[in-house]
Formats: sequence, C-alpha cells, structure tokens
Amino acid sequence: MKLRPLLFILAACIAGSALRADEGMWLFSAPPRAQIKAKYGFDLTDAWLDHVRLSSVRFNSGGSASFVSADGLVITNHHVAADSLQKMGSKEKNILRDGFYAKTQADEIKANDLEVNVLQSIEDVTARINAAVPANLSGADAALARRKIIAEVEKESKDKTGLRSDVVTLYQGGAYHLYRFKRYTDIRLVFAPDQQIAFYGGDPDNFEYPRYCLDVTFFRVYENGQPIKSANFLKWSANGAADGELTFVSGHPGSTRRLLTIAELEYLRDNQVLYQLGQLKREEVLLNSWSGRSGENARRAKDELFGIQNSRKVSDGRIAALQDPVFFGAKVAAEKALKQKLADMPGGTEALAAYDRIAAAQKVIAGLAHRSRAINSLNSDSFSIANRLLRAGDERPKPNGERLSEYADARRESFEQQLFTDKPIYTDLEILTLADSLTMFVADLGANDPVVLAVLAGKSPRVRAAELINATKVRDVAFRKKLYEGGAAAVAAAKDPMIEVARVLDPESRALRKSFEAQNEIKQQAQAVIGKARFAIDGTNNYPDATFTLRLSYGPVKGYVENGQKIPATTNFAGLYARAADQDNKPPFDLPPQWIAKKSALDLTVPFNFVSTADIIGGNSGSPVINRAGEFVGIIFDGNLQSLAGDYGYDDIEARALSVHSAGILEALKKVYEVPALVAELTAGKR
Amino acid sequence: MKLRPLLFILAACIAGSALRADEGMWLFSAPPRAQIKAKYGFDLTDAWLDHVRLSSVRFNSGGSASFVSADGLVITNHHVAADSLQKMGSKEKNILRDGFYAKTQADEIKANDLEVNVLQSIEDVTARINAAVPANLSGADAALARRKIIAEVEKESKDKTGLRSDVVTLYQGGAYHLYRFKRYTDIRLVFAPDQQIAFYGGDPDNFEYPRYCLDVTFFRVYENGQPIKSANFLKWSANGAADGELTFVSGHPGSTRRLLTIAELEYLRDNQVLYQLGQLKREEVLLNSWSGRSGENARRAKDELFGIQNSRKVSDGRIAALQDPVFFGAKVAAEKALKQKLADMPGGTEALAAYDRIAAAQKVIAGLAHRSRAINSLNSDSFSIANRLLRAGDERPKPNGERLSEYADARRESFEQQLFTDKPIYTDLEILTLADSLTMFVADLGANDPVVLAVLAGKSPRVRAAELINATKVRDVAFRKKLYEGGAAAVAAAKDPMIEVARVLDPESRALRKSFEAQNEIKQQAQAVIGKARFAIDGTNNYPDATFTLRLSYGPVKGYVENGQKIPATTNFAGLYARAADQDNKPPFDLPPQWIAKKSALDLTVPFNFVSTADIIGGNSGSPVINRAGEFVGIIFDGNLQSLAGDYGYDDIEARALSVHSAGILEALKKVYEVPALVAELTAGKR
Repeated sequence: MKLRPLLFILAACIAGSALRADEGMWLFSAPPRAQIKAKYGFDLTDAWLDHVRLSSVRFNSGGSASFVSADGLVITNHHVAADSLQKMGSKEKNILRDGFYAKTQADEIKANDLEVNVLQSIEDVTARINAAVPANLSGADAALARRKIIAEVEKESKDKTGLRSDVVTLYQGGAYHLYRFKRYTDIRLVFAPDQQIAFYGGDPDNFEYPRYCLDVTFFRVYENGQPIKSANFLKWSANGAADGELTFVSGHPGSTRRLLTIAELEYLRDNQVLYQLGQLKREEVLLNSWSGRSGENARRAKDELFGIQNSRKVSDGRIAALQDPVFFGAKVAAEKALKQKLADMPGGTEALAAYDRIAAAQKVIAGLAHRSRAINSLNSDSFSIANRLLRAGDERPKPNGERLSEYADARRESFEQQLFTDKPIYTDLEILTLADSLTMFVADLGANDPVVLAVLAGKSPRVRAAELINATKVRDVAFRKKLYEGGAAAVAAAKDPMIEVARVLDPESRALRKSFEAQNEIKQQAQAVIGKARFAIDGTNNYPDATFTLRLSYGPVKGYVENGQKIPATTNFAGLYARAADQDNKPPFDLPPQWIAKKSALDLTVPFNFVSTADIIGGNSGSPVINRAGEFVGIIFDGNLQSLAGDYGYDDIEARALSVHSAGILEALKKVYEVPALVAELTAGKR
Repeated sequence: MKLRPLLFILAACIAGSALRADEGMWLFSAPPRAQIKAKYGFDLTDAWLDHVRLSSVRFNSGGSASFVSADGLVITNHHVAADSLQKMGSKEKNILRDGFYAKTQADEIKANDLEVNVLQSIEDVTARINAAVPANLSGADAALARRKIIAEVEKESKDKTGLRSDVVTLYQGGAYHLYRFKRYTDIRLVFAPDQQIAFYGGDPDNFEYPRYCLDVTFFRVYENGQPIKSANFLKWSANGAADGELTFVSGHPGSTRRLLTIAELEYLRDNQVLYQLGQLKREEVLLNSWSGRSGENARRAKDELFGIQNSRKVSDGRIAALQDPVFFGAKVAAEKALKQKLADMPGGTEALAAYDRIAAAQKVIAGLAHRSRAINSLNSDSFSIANRLLRAGDERPKPNGERLSEYADARRESFEQQLFTDKPIYTDLEILTLADSLTMFVADLGANDPVVLAVLAGKSPRVRAAELINATKVRDVAFRKKLYEGGAAAVAAAKDPMIEVARVLDPESRALRKSFEAQNEIKQQAQAVIGKARFAIDGTNNYPDATFTLRLSYGPVKGYVENGQKIPATTNFAGLYARAADQDNKPPFDLPPQWIAKKSALDLTVPFNFVSTADIIGGNSGSPVINRAGEFVGIIFDGNLQSLAGDYGYDDIEARALSVHSAGILEALKKVYEVPALVAELTAGKR
C-alpha cells in the first residue's frame, strides 16, 4: 500500500478523544510515553526515540524505509522500489520482474531519480507563522501570506543548515512544525527478489491476509561516490517478534482524514471517492488490456498498473466504510456529541460557526471539482513535463513567496531532479494514456467547449494524442534543459505543440487552483478554530492526522477473527507452498523456479509474514517494525481489507498491519537467494 | 462480438441515401437484387434466398448460426455458445475451457436453456397495426394501443400456426412485419474446441486483425428426442472463398442506429455511451480481480467477463467514433443537408417539426436516465429472478395487451424456460456483483434516498448483499415454480427478502419505464414521419436499421490498408504458429498442447481466418459466409476495430468483417482434433 503521490489530500485534522487501544500515529516530538508505560510497562526514552528516528528513512517517491547496517544499507518494500526497479530495467533485463543482486559494491546500480530523507530535527514554528498572518486577512490573502512566510522560513532554514526544510501543517493548522531532513540522492540497488515472490498473490491477494510476500528491497545510500556511514541503524533480530509481543512502527503515513467534518466526509462519499474509483477503474482496464497484447507492453505498464490496482482497492475500501450506515452513523453521532459539548462551553459558539464555514466552503469546492478535474486530467509524462516547463518559465521570475508552492526555492533541487530525469518514457504507452484521458476530457467538458476545441484542433482524441506525442520534443532531456534555462521566452519560441496545449489549459487551471486554495484556506482557518476547541476538551492525548512525516505507532503481534474464523498472527514458509499447491501453481500464485528448487533447503516452520495492531496507512509501506530493544523485527508492507477504513478511523478488532518477518527474510536470503555477503552485513550490522 | 442481450436499444431507424459499395443489412423480403446484379452480375433468385433463409439459425441468447448437414447439425461461434458451455461444465470438467467432442450421438449433451429459431415467413402487417393506433392518440395512449394490437397479432399467429410470432418494428416504425419462427429448445452439444484456440489472443486481440481463431462450436438440433431432419442446410465448401470472391452473410445483426438524429447521437455521445463505459469498466475490474483469486472463480466468471470485455471494446469504439470531429461532423452535415431538402419539398415542414419533437423527447429521456439506471441497477441473478417472480404475479392476471411486453402470451414459453432453468448460480459471485451494484446504487441515488434506506435496511452494501443472497430462496427452482404458479398471493406470502427488495423498487421502476416508453413513442411517431419523407427522397434503395432479425449482407473477400501498411485478406496456420512464437507462447497467445503436438501434421498454408467488406454488427456472430453456389465458406466471428463505428455508419475503406475459413475449420477437425465422424458428416452433408 504505497502512498500514491498524486493523492488529493484534502485537509489535515487532529485526532480525537476516546482513543482505542494502540490507536495513533504519534509525532516523535510528542510520543505516547504515558499510554505505553501504562499499558505495556515500557519507557520510551529520548535515546530510544532518537535512535529510531535517525534509523528511519523516507522515500520521497512515497514510502518508508530504515537503515539496517552501519554502511548505509537500507531496507524498504519491493513495491516502494518498484518504480525505480522498472526504470533500471530494459527490454533485455527485467529487474522489476526478475530481481537483482550486486555481488560486489561495484555492481550496485544507481537509481535514476530517487531521493531519500532522514529527519534531523523538529522545530515548532507555529507562533512565527501565525504572527505573519494577520487575523483580519480574508481567505485568499491569508493563504498568500501564509505561503509567503512558510517559504521564508523554509528558505532561511535551508540556507542556514543546508538541510531540506519543510514546514509541516499539523492539527488542522493548529500547529506548524519545521522538519529538517538530511537529503540523499545517490541511492544504489543492492538486492531485490523477483517480483513474483515480493508481490505473491498479486492484486487478488493484495490487502488480504494470510499472506506470503517477500516484499523487500535493499538499497545503499551513497554520498560523494561512497557509501555513507550510518551511525544509527536498526540491529537485525534473527528471531523477530513472537505472538503477543509489543512492537513499534516508525514510518511515514501519508494522509488520514479522521476528523473531517460530516460535510467533508459526505463530499468524499458522494463525490470525490466515486470520481477516483471511476478514474482508477478506467485506467486499470486500459493498462490491463494493453499489457495483454505483449510481454513488452506488460513490462512497460506493470508498475503503473500495480499502483492503480492498489489505489483502486483502497478507494473500494474507503467507499465501503463511508457507505456503511454503522460506521458513518458513528461519525455523525460523534460530531453531534462534540457540537453539544461546544454549545455548552465558553467560546464554543465560534467553533460551531466554523463548522458552518467548512460546510459552505465544501459546497463551493464541490461546484468547482468537476471542471477542475477535467482541466487537469491530461495523462501522459510528456504533457506533465510540458506543463512544468511552461509554468517554470512563468513562475521562476516571481518573488519566491508568490510562486505556486512547487516552484518555491526550497523545492528547487527536487523539482529539477524530477524534471531532468532521463527515465524511459514509452511513446506507445504515452499515446495510449493521453488518448484515453483526452476521451474523458471531451466527455467531462463537452465536445463543443472552447477549451476542448482548442486542445483537439479538429482531430479525434486518438489521432490528436498520436500527433502530439510524436511531435513534442519534451522527452529529450537536453531540450528540456534548454527551455528551462531559457525561461518563458525560450519556452514560447520553441512552439512545442504539447507545451502549447499546456498553455491553452494553463489560465483556467490556475484560476481553479486559486479558487480551491481560497476555499481550503477558509476550511483550514475554520479547522484551526475547531481544533483549538477540541484541544480544550480532549487535553494532550492527541495525535495529528498523517502528513507523510515521521510517526510512531505501536501494538502487539496479534491475530484476529473474521466471519467467525480465527486468523493466526503469523504465516510460515509451509503455508506459502501449500497456497501455491492449492492454486495449481498458476499465476499470480506460481512460485519462482528457485523457490521450487530450494524448498528442501528451507526450514518451513520459519515465520514469513505476520500481523499487528499498529495504526498504519499508505506511506507506511517499508516502515521498520521494531522491538523494545530497538531492533528490526519486520517490515510493514500492507494492511488487511478491514484496515482500509483507517483513512477515517482506527479499528483494533479486525484491522491489522501486515509485515514481513525478519527471520523469514533472513531464511530466504540464506537458503533461496544464497547471498552470504548481504546476510553477513545484516547479521554483523556492517560490511 | 456477441450481441449483449441487455444492450439498451434506443430506436430503430431507416437507412439513408447515398449508400456506399456493399453497404446494407438487407431484409430477405426486400433483397438488394438490383445492386448485386449490377455490381457482381449475380441473380439473387427466390430459390437461393429461401434456401439460405431456411438454413439460417438464430440463437436467442444473442447470435447467429446455420445448418450444415441434413441431420440438424448447426455451426455457430464458440463465443456464442460460451454461456451454454460454461453451464454444461463443472468444477471437475471445464467444457468451456477444454472443449468437448461427442463420439456418438448418445454422448451429445443437452444445453440447459438454449432456444434457437428458424425464420419460416415474413408478413407485412403495417396496415393492421397502424389502423389500430388512431392518429389523434397521445404518446402514452398510442404506445398502449400499439402494444395491444401487436400482442393481439402475435397471439393470433401463434395460436393459428403454433410458430413463435414476433411483430418487428422496421424503418423507425415506418413498417411492421410479422416474423414467424420455428422454435427449437432441445439443442445438444456435438463439438467445441478448447477456448484457447477459439478465442486465441483473448481480449487483447479481440476486434483486431490479422487473427487466428477457431471460433466455432457444433450443436445438433433435436425434436421429440431425435435429431431433426434439416432439409435446408449449407453444403460445406472444402476450399472456401478466394481473395476477391463475392460472399454473402446471412445472420441476425442486433442493432444499428445509423439514422439517429443529431440530438439522439449527442445523447449517446454525452450520456449513454459514457455511462455504459463506466459500468462496463467497473464490472470488468470487479470480475477480473475476483477471477484472479482462484481458478474456480475464474471458471465461474469467465463467460460474463468475456462478454463485458467485448462490450467495453465496442463502447470504446463507439465513443471514439462519436467524439471524432470528422465522423460526427459528417453526420451533422448530412442532417443539415437533409433538412434543407425537407424545407424545399412539399410536406417537408412536418418532418422538420418531427426533428424538434425528437430533440424535446430526448431531453426528457436525458432527465430520466440517471435515476432510471440506478433504480434498475441491482446486478445478480437472484435479484433478476425475484423481480420476474414479483412482476409475473402482477402481470399475468392482466389482459394480454396491457401487460409489460415481456409478459405477453406470445413470449410465455421463452419466459418460463428462462425462469425455470436450473443453470448453476454461484452464491459467492452473486454476493460480489450485488454488493458492487448496491455500492453504485447508493452512489447514484444518495445515501439518504428513501429507496436506498429501504433497500439497505441499515446495513452496508456488502453486508446487505450477503444477507440477501444467503436468505433468498429464489435459487431453488421448485420454489420459483411454486410462487409462479401461486401468483401474486403466493409471492406476497413467501416474504422472500429478495422479492421484497424487488417490491420496494418496483413502483418507481414501472413509473420510469412508463415515462420512457411515452417518450420513445413520441420519438417513434416522429421518426416515422421523417422516415416517410426520407423515403420520398431516397426511393427504394433502403434497408432498415438492424433489429436482431434475419438480414443479408454481401461483399468480397478483401484486405485493407492501415496506417500505410497493407493487411492481407487471409491468414493461415503458419501465421498462428508465428504469432505464438513471437509472444513466447504466453497467455493469451499460448497454443493448446494438441496444437503444438499436431503442428507437423497440418498443412500450414491452409487459410485460417479472412476478412470481407460485408456490413455486419454484434448479433452477426456465427453467421454463415456463403458463396454464389449457396455453400458454406466461412463463419463470421468478429469485426475489426474500425468496424465499431458501424453502429452509426458503414465504412468500406478500413472496416472489415472477420471470419473463420471453411478450409481451416476442416483442416483443424481432421488433423488436430481427429474427429472423422464430424468431418464425414460435414463433407457428405449428412451422417
């Protein structure tokens, strides 16, 4: 369950009162010391927290990871690495599908466009941000003022420390924290298993349990051409965690929306999630069908298809939760109860009025959404590059604080790295996705809309897509650099047809974005009011909604009961072979050849996957599971179907986090893959 | 390209002037004698036409076929037979996938619920129908009067002749013909190849060319427990048709909409086809994902999935045509030109006013469509049976002419055969599809709609679907019979929860249907006015839009040019093996084992598939391709992607009909399947 980077994050909210056991994605700056001490008798010391934090790694492409040796060795999920693995491959050598092992350091392959971050410090800058946004400013002006001060704080920090510096909005705007990250971009592949065992059971088994996935990939972090010395890393636990044992998860949950108001949840239920489902299912059919035409097509589309199927299951799970009268009824009842409390407390009226402002803003957003989605729907890498070139030309000359946020100076390096990546872009796949999205573009705006007429230029979506993709030069990195460096004048002079299409869409896209941002600002201000009132009621036992920043979750290894049937906490290698046999070893339940060949060498009783009650969500993929001793006992790779409601609320009854067991990983590396150097590095904690 | 029986047929229209070469799906009662004589020098004699008509067979499940021996042997497509083959199979014996051959007559397996029809006569009853619908009646009253007289004519004919009697609306209501069919229901399977070669290349190659499909299945028609004597059958041509040779297609095109008004086409483009695409893609993802979880799931869902993928490609092709400014612009220009002619001719004003009435009615329909689709969206066999039991109880006591059309006496036998079929219904698949459709039901009507609240009864779509499917008794055939015989009182007394859900939906479903029918009646009357005016302009060189009744098409075997590349008319066995090798013999391009084993026995130069310019569409699947001598030279199984615009217009440049070659079928039966008795029967024309 990799975080889809494009996921539309509506708002950040604070968590509420009456937490369930083991609930929470806690800030490292406000850990749940008391709860853990009370329930598990364990002290979360500063040393333990610092060690875990500095051992934790964020993959900016949308996942989590951790250092597992002193020589920069990092473990993440195979599915977090999939995009990179696919780009490293070629028609001749399919690394994503077949796996990889670097026998020597010289064999380690550099990923084209990976950026990983390690959190160095957290600073509360709430007072400074709020001071720069006068209370009398209106929505749009306040948004601009806030963006300006945020950009200023980020730039100042970046200039001073050299560290990536992001101001993170927490507690619905109740707090602003400055997160400083050490940033690494030379990331090299050490080991990946074949995808068939990494994603065993494929889309059908995704979000299901019991499971049998070796969803791991090892990278090494380099700096100045040499592996870094990672002083903080998680010692590998050869035995892993036992049933019932307390474990911790340190990772980067992408987004949760647990304290949205009912008006906002209704919008998700009746509009946003339905739209996403329609889009995802359309893209899934497109890529599935195209992949079926040849093995090479399948290789080219695999990673994207994988992400789409994953997101589709997530959205299916979300709509199921939102449409469940019991689940949704409980949310309605909770809001009603809180409003009652607000009505009875001093200053509560202001918070009640804030609810109304959110509902009104949500209504405006609902009115903008259809057209906004359509205007921004053209789906191809070529269009996306063209659009960024166009906007960079227009944005760069502006003062830093007045630019669209992704063009701020603090994000420049990451932006340029992305823009100038030479990752392969496939013309046929580009035409396919652009034609399909142009079809929906016409459908959503109407065939006679002036923007549609201008974009199609009298051609059908298919013909126009082929024409644009074949004619544009933006897939040439040198061309991109030339235009980027030449600025708006060079961009205009190029008369590149794809850039000119982006130019047609740009004014309305910007105008709609501005309107959205104004409404989100109104909501954010109102949410801050509610957040403060809530805080007054709930006290300090709170965690903010997820924001793809480092969080700590916890809970024991624990099975559950589903439809009256007991599901044990742990699976083992014997279960893997039994599942393959049950399914006649047919895809996606077929075992890779070396797994069949090495069966007799394996200890089949060794644990393979396990579940725990830790509170996780998309973005946590690749998070280390850690024991009290601060050791690596497993790696998060999924949640079960029941966990998908986690966007809106936590459940400790059936919802579970799924992990690969540290003992299972070691057994596979030793006996199936026979990679003694890697095993030795994990066991010794160094090369 | 099997006709989807549920396809919503909007209207029947007449064909227009300025026909292209080889255009047309001609009535057997008004064949294109002059055109064929002029272009090909061939006389369509009455004897030739009668022979071909009586050799032609309609599969009521949605396809075409023909007699190919004097002993009731019928050939159709494997994909037309797929639904039956799937139902004949079991967990142990997968007939759909693995094929079947009855070595002796005793081995022939009866299909559960097939009905085939052979057209005996065509009678023009236009005057009688029109006389019973006074010109001064309003939309709804006129519809009722027409339904009443149609039911009366059908019943009278059925009583008199014992034949199935259907009044068919032609030329947009410009004509009504009484079609009398000999009806057979004891249809037994003789031979089916494995699905892998029947549907070689699967969904990826569907609607593509070149192709390599042995898309055939042989049945035998029985009556009174014995094979019938089919005096008229098509003699098998061992050599088939050569490149450039004139061929005919006698089959049952399901529906075309070539002369819809622009207002109606815009509705398809902006509403109906988009809705269908969304629904099809949703169902495709659902069944694909579920099929992936186990081989048994895949077997259960395969035929339905197959139909959905097929329909999805059709809809993709339709939206591509409708969104193409060139194609659509030509339709707009043609309507404008016709309107100009109408404005200049006496009585033309009435036709022009009819255009406005159609546009107005279309607007009303657009307003009803969303809710109507939602109210009728619950997708499971159990619900469908429950709904029919409920309605049968209410409809049967009414006078024949006042019933909903599918409950008319003339359709009673077919209706009861369908209702009481003991075809397997899978509980797990039922829960899956019902839950998914309930999710969209809530999405489309809103969570707080009274109908939604009543249907869900406080449960989530998933929980409610499981509850309903597990609790209903309608999957028990004896229970169905009891309720059907007991009528409305017995239905009410049963308190079956699924029937009670149908009862919740029934009033609004009926009301919406009534509104639709009133608007369609307005459109039909207006279309008849336009049709008559057109007829005055175009003369007799017209064919009506397709109506799933027997039609004659024609055209030579002929290749085409695509993106500048020449596509030859015919493929051969060598091409099949080359394609499999190119794709590493991976699914869906893998060859079945016996095809690999028998390769050396085959003459690889024998033609396998071929294309011709004949004008066909969904429902034509299984149609015989016939030479001047009235012999069987091939069987239609698909059209290429370019042919998908055929719903709205004919193209002889790139659009092609795809057939399996008679020589290729014989070669495969002889050398791969080694079925000498079947080969002998085909060769001799009798057993």
